[in-house]
Amino acid sequence: MSYARRTGMLAVGLMSGTSLDGVDAALVEIAGVNESTKVKQLKFSSYPFSLATKEKIKAALSVSTSNVEAICSLNFELGRIFGEAVVKVCQEYGVASEELGFVASHGQTIYHLPRPADKNLVPSTLQIGESALISEIAKTTVVSDFRPRDMAVGGQGAPIVPYSEYILYRSEQSTRILQNIGGIGNATVIPQNGQLDQLTAFDTGPGNMVIDELCRRFYDEEFDRDGAHGAAGQVDQTVLEALLEHPYFAKPFPKTTGREEFGSEYVTRILAKYQLQPDDWIATATALTASSIAQAVRQFATEQTELIVGGGGSYNPTLVKMIGAQLPDVKVMIQEDLGYSSDAKEAVAMTILGNQTLQRQPSNVPSATGARKPVILGKVTYY
Amino acid sequence: MSYARRTGMLAVGLMSGTSLDGVDAALVEIAGVNESTKVKQLKFSSYPFSLATKEKIKAALSVSTSNVEAICSLNFELGRIFGEAVVKVCQEYGVASEELGFVASHGQTIYHLPRPADKNLVPSTLQIGESALISEIAKTTVVSDFRPRDMAVGGQGAPIVPYSEYILYRSEQSTRILQNIGGIGNATVIPQNGQLDQLTAFDTGPGNMVIDELCRRFYDEEFDRDGAHGAAGQVDQTVLEALLEHPYFAKPFPKTTGREEFGSEYVTRILAKYQLQPDDWIATATALTASSIAQAVRQFATEQTELIVGGGGSYNPTLVKMIGAQLPDVKVMIQEDLGYSSDAKEAVAMTILGNQTLQRQPSNVPSATGARKPVILGKVTYY
Repeated sequence: MSYARRTGMLAVGLMSGTSLDGVDAALVEIAGVNESTKVKQLKFSSYPFSLATKEKIKAALSVSTSNVEAICSLNFELGRIFGEAVVKVCQEYGVASEELGFVASHGQTIYHLPRPADKNLVPSTLQIGESALISEIAKTTVVSDFRPRDMAVGGQGAPIVPYSEYILYRSEQSTRILQNIGGIGNATVIPQNGQLDQLTAFDTGPGNMVIDELCRRFYDEEFDRDGAHGAAGQVDQTVLEALLEHPYFAKPFPKTTGREEFGSEYVTRILAKYQLQPDDWIATATALTASSIAQAVRQFATEQTELIVGGGGSYNPTLVKMIGAQLPDVKVMIQEDLGYSSDAKEAVAMTILGNQTLQRQPSNVPSATGARKPVILGKVTYY
Repeated sequence: MSYARRTGMLAVGLMSGTSLDGVDAALVEIAGVNESTKVKQLKFSSYPFSLATKEKIKAALSVSTSNVEAICSLNFELGRIFGEAVVKVCQEYGVASEELGFVASHGQTIYHLPRPADKNLVPSTLQIGESALISEIAKTTVVSDFRPRDMAVGGQGAPIVPYSEYILYRSEQSTRILQNIGGIGNATVIPQNGQLDQLTAFDTGPGNMVIDELCRRFYDEEFDRDGAHGAAGQVDQTVLEALLEHPYFAKPFPKTTGREEFGSEYVTRILAKYQLQPDDWIATATALTASSIAQAVRQFATEQTELIVGGGGSYNPTLVKMIGAQLPDVKVMIQEDLGYSSDAKEAVAMTILGNQTLQRQPSNVPSATGARKPVILGKVTYY
């Protein structure tokens, strides 16, 4: 418990991602609004979903196994789990959840349909985790459901974090590029001294997706822990250059990609086409991620550029080293070098969005989502 | 257009019921809060759903035909339709929707699961019609999704209108019983000079459900227009007394019933058991509704009691006359006798709930829903 005098209010941000691991809860102290927002992380915890809950979410996000009754019930079930996560993270820090100014909850995405091909469908997105239950359990105001409002003005409802990245990372001294490496790699570019409408955000290409899939196929391992396989192998330059011919890398910004382009089927195709030893394959796939990131970053780098790597890939030192080697004039760091936690980043981001909403200020970034204008995101459930 | 000076703010209430007819929009002027709330209806319109939308809703509310993609898309499709309804009702009255203080939207219920039998499910309810789209189209703040917060404190999330009935109808001179006659009959009892926590609400039994089903079977008509068949037939007292033996009528308050008890299968059973001429059957079914209402009302009637009949059944004069005949000491009226519109009642009710939410005041009625306490209902989407 901290007895330091508080200058802001306490808030909890909740994030529950597409990995279905569980819910991340960040307890922060937050003050100010817009550019003057100050956030300090006090406590971060992840609470895994039970196997039963995880199975229900999996069933709910597939067209073939979902139905209205299961979704109706799961919305409330997740609301309870999210509310209990708030109470727990507060207990762990030694405050009561009643002391919170608010909770900001992203919700569990069970469907995201920004550009439907089927004419019977409209652009839409669906996050669940009933805020009314979070509010009752945590005994405080809840801000939830941030993405739909951006879609209502023509945005893709994603990415959702650039506003918070702008608040936390903008710099007068340097261009800062936030490079998240999850399954897919995505970057947010904040020009030196840049304004919010000068942000660019896009997917750089595969993040850990190809590396992970190779680890599963060769070693039955979920990912390349500590980049060990990548470090043990040799990058095959010929194969790497061929992989970099993938049309995605030449597409103009802004652009997004996904499992459709770099998932399991892609790995099956490249494994059939080129013959390499397992660790050489993993090293080459690591170089593919590093090179595609470096290529993109070079286009935005100025004299003073910092690349701040986050996400699971930031814990793969082989990958981070390769990125650094390709960008000798860029300062490559990981979130932890700046005193942030990569794991907590998105949960903390939610508190910045929630704070904006309660002060009736926008927090989408039209240049990142494609929205027609800035809008106030989210819905407020008052306790 | 009215040029009278306004003392309150303009608001639109939206209601879209289980009949799937379309969306009802009531433009009101509203001022005050809690017991001092004053509402004046300025304009009411109903906008029917297209056949395609109606089919999508039907598919979304059935376990066997629903899926996550269709629900995700329909939430946004209905949000657009609801937003356009707001703009239209404002245009018809001659104001711009930007002038509204707020919109209050009930949403389309696609599932309601207050007491699930299946242990894998939790009490929950699901209304859709994305408020972010309503807000963008109507260019104003939206309050939506009123039922979940009541369920989060153990309530059934229904009935949702008693608070507004208390505000609009409470009286120092008389006990007022609001008798809605839809498919099912439901009553809200407001004791003379009563406080909010003294309200009782319950289902009286069948409303138009049995009458309508008999009209479909005998005449291929959807309902007994103007009570013509009921007026032409003779009530069979023996059959009526037998029908009143149904165990529902003897159950203690509060109680709810539905299609499961008085729907198509019930009608098949009674038709097999008793032989009457078509119009005599319809007259007897009309008497069943009237008698079950009168039996319930008698238990709550005081020296000064007014029974205010609303819903589709209030337009069946045979039914209303029968109710009056059974309650000689009660003043039986229809909504229109008090200057209200039965059709608009629920849409107007939403504006009262939305107004409470924006002023951070509760609007559920625990004695009606079973909730543990009064709570602030709904979610606020700020424009």
